[in-house]
Amino acid sequence: MAEKKPIITLTTDFGESDYFVPAMKGAIYTVNHAVEIVDVTHLIPAHDIYAAAFTLLCCYRDFPKNTIHLVVVDPGVGSARRPILVMTDDYNFVGPDNGVFSYIYQRETVNRVVHFTAEHYFRQPVSNTFHGRDVFAPCAAYVSKLVDWRMMGEEVDDPVRFNTPTPSAVSPKQVRGTVIHVDRFGNLTTNITGAELTDEMIRAGAQVRIGSREASRVLTHFAEANPNELFAYFGSTGFLELAVPRQSAARVIEARRGIEVEVFVP
Amino acid sequence: MAEKKPIITLTTDFGESDYFVPAMKGAIYTVNHAVEIVDVTHLIPAHDIYAAAFTLLCCYRDFPKNTIHLVVVDPGVGSARRPILVMTDDYNFVGPDNGVFSYIYQRETVNRVVHFTAEHYFRQPVSNTFHGRDVFAPCAAYVSKLVDWRMMGEEVDDPVRFNTPTPSAVSPKQVRGTVIHVDRFGNLTTNITGAELTDEMIRAGAQVRIGSREASRVLTHFAEANPNELFAYFGSTGFLELAVPRQSAARVIEARRGIEVEVFVP
Amino acid sequence: MAEKKPIITLTTDFGESDYFVPAMKGAIYTVNHAVEIVDVTHLIPAHDIYAAAFTLLCCYRDFPKNTIHLVVVDPGVGSARRPILVMTDDYNFVGPDNGVFSYIYQRETVNRVVHFTAEHYFRQPVSNTFHGRDVFAPCAAYVSKLVDWRMMGEEVDDPVRFNTPTPSAVSPKQVRGTVIHVDRFGNLTTNITGAELTDEMIRAGAQVRIGSREASRVLTHFAEANPNELFAYFGSTGFLELAVPRQSAARVIEARRGIEVEVFVP
Repeated sequence: MAEKKPIITLTTDFGESDYFVPAMKGAIYTVNHAVEIVDVTHLIPAHDIYAAAFTLLCCYRDFPKNTIHLVVVDPGVGSARRPILVMTDDYNFVGPDNGVFSYIYQRETVNRVVHFTAEHYFRQPVSNTFHGRDVFAPCAAYVSKLVDWRMMGEEVDDPVRFNTPTPSAVSPKQVRGTVIHVDRFGNLTTNITGAELTDEMIRAGAQVRIGSREASRVLTHFAEANPNELFAYFGSTGFLELAVPRQSAARVIEARRGIEVEVFVP
Repeated sequence: MAEKKPIITLTTDFGESDYFVPAMKGAIYTVNHAVEIVDVTHLIPAHDIYAAAFTLLCCYRDFPKNTIHLVVVDPGVGSARRPILVMTDDYNFVGPDNGVFSYIYQRETVNRVVHFTAEHYFRQPVSNTFHGRDVFAPCAAYVSKLVDWRMMGEEVDDPVRFNTPTPSAVSPKQVRGTVIHVDRFGNLTTNITGAELTDEMIRAGAQVRIGSREASRVLTHFAEANPNELFAYFGSTGFLELAVPRQSAARVIEARRGIEVEVFVP
Repeated sequence: MAEKKPIITLTTDFGESDYFVPAMKGAIYTVNHAVEIVDVTHLIPAHDIYAAAFTLLCCYRDFPKNTIHLVVVDPGVGSARRPILVMTDDYNFVGPDNGVFSYIYQRETVNRVVHFTAEHYFRQPVSNTFHGRDVFAPCAAYVSKLVDWRMMGEEVDDPVRFNTPTPSAVSPKQVRGTVIHVDRFGNLTTNITGAELTDEMIRAGAQVRIGSREASRVLTHFAEANPNELFAYFGSTGFLELAVPRQSAARVIEARRGIEVEVFVP
């Protein structure tokens, strides 16, 4: 059996047509040749830390333990924002301290957050514009080589976090949320989970309104839906989603991220 | 010499901006850390099993023996369509039983088709909407670990297949086919092969009509073509293609998949 | 410690939706299963050898020594243009002899250029249209297996090179260059480096004009820029770039590749 190579995943807004992503990968391999690099996506909308945080949230737990999740969506490059390492029992996260790990702070027991300060672990000279290559990639690579965090920086206790969008309960029978993601198929992901839209509410005939439209019902299987039916269901990440079978719900009802969603028992 | 890692290729319609593909990869690595994952493409048009089948057809034999080709274009997710394993002497294919392996059934000697029924090989809990992550990825990963198929499911003898588009012979001197693919360069791939457009027909001055346009001639080298010339040639996959040098033939003659192509000796 | 796998990077204009790239990867793994393949990009504009040369220039040195950089942007496929290997102390480059390695000839000490002539190293039969799969991929893979270049071809001394765009000095206080690249963020990369726009000129208040617009100043950090400010800075590849904070400079000033840039001390 071959030794297990450490996995580093990459989530960036660098796109796929420029030299940014391969430069980062080259910088990683230069530090640790024996690593497995896995792309999450490089198509995060430019500077959109919310989209990056959400995408990471949806897949980070699917990776084997000890995976290093490297996220570089960094509108503040060149400013004083800190490069950090977030350590949990199962995973390490590397990226800028701009809130991109807010969901992780919310969902995981964080053992510590480390500010990378030991510049000899950076690629020299450090450019002012491309810390993905010069700071984050080599630091993630050294983490994959099991360098002790104490060598690389100092613990901090005030990482930046944004308020992860949470639905608001208007009444026990009414919850308001928003669309937080639109996927490739045009399915709409809301921030409403089973904690807000309970089985009890569904049994009581809960209805789902999105903008000025209403979903027909809450289904458990795509295959039960009728053609052209706008329906709701709990997606594979635990969030309530809206879809139209084999069509783009986003296009059919002209919805996008940020639109309000209401769940209520009539 | 390092041990050969098994290769799993991925062909999906999941796009490159969502968490779907990395979630599948994470699920694979979780089962078998020592695997090589190679993307075929994730830009199959949504739900287009024909495009997926064609793309796989064009490259599956370029991979080393024992490669596992995993295809997840699955408009019927959540319905009763079966997850299957198609075994040939050289390759294993994993995906939904919706016809996506129709070209394989046509071109390869299939040793058996297995319906994955042993749910303890699935990622639990199995979601209703993302069998790519929960069923296909782990099953492909267990196949890469050489788990015996008898442990994973049951042989079936009625896999779904669609009629692979075949040209029709109108007369010994006339064949009708269609455009089955348009590539990035705007080159048009037809379903006509050397079996229909024979060397003899070419020597006899066979002409190629596409829609209301006519190709100038059948060439063997791109470099022989003149600027702006619409010409025909046998592409690297054995199908007759149409192109305009350094331009998009699809744009020049406004052609797309499904358009009729006729070959005839005048 | 695991043995270091040789790295082969891929730069092509094949896009990501067709079978071209996976066919190349399959052809590589078929020759050398124990190789690490890293995508640079497959989104080079079709047939654009200048863009391919620039993208490679920006990242080839970030990879570990002995990396093989494979570039397939090959508008002359099927013609007599030679498949070549360019050998430097640190890297090997494989691709068509069409000028795509012009920056390498300019910046590196080239030990030799080899014309691949030994056809038994090619994938047989060699198609007329897809040398990426049939010639370049297997040759790069054999190079990664350390096959002696003398076995694979013959040294040549006249590789094709294009004139890499260089700025012209109008006077000691005035330099004219052009935009050579527009990246995903809409930042504009010029061909002007610190050799032309010297620290002395910057201290003397050098101004940067692009088309009919003028940059406000030359900054060293993105974070110093004001909202909506068009500013200049030296990017991570050493070229002078123009940007607008968190906006697309290309869109804001309607600029694209080829537009003139002038630096002058007033």
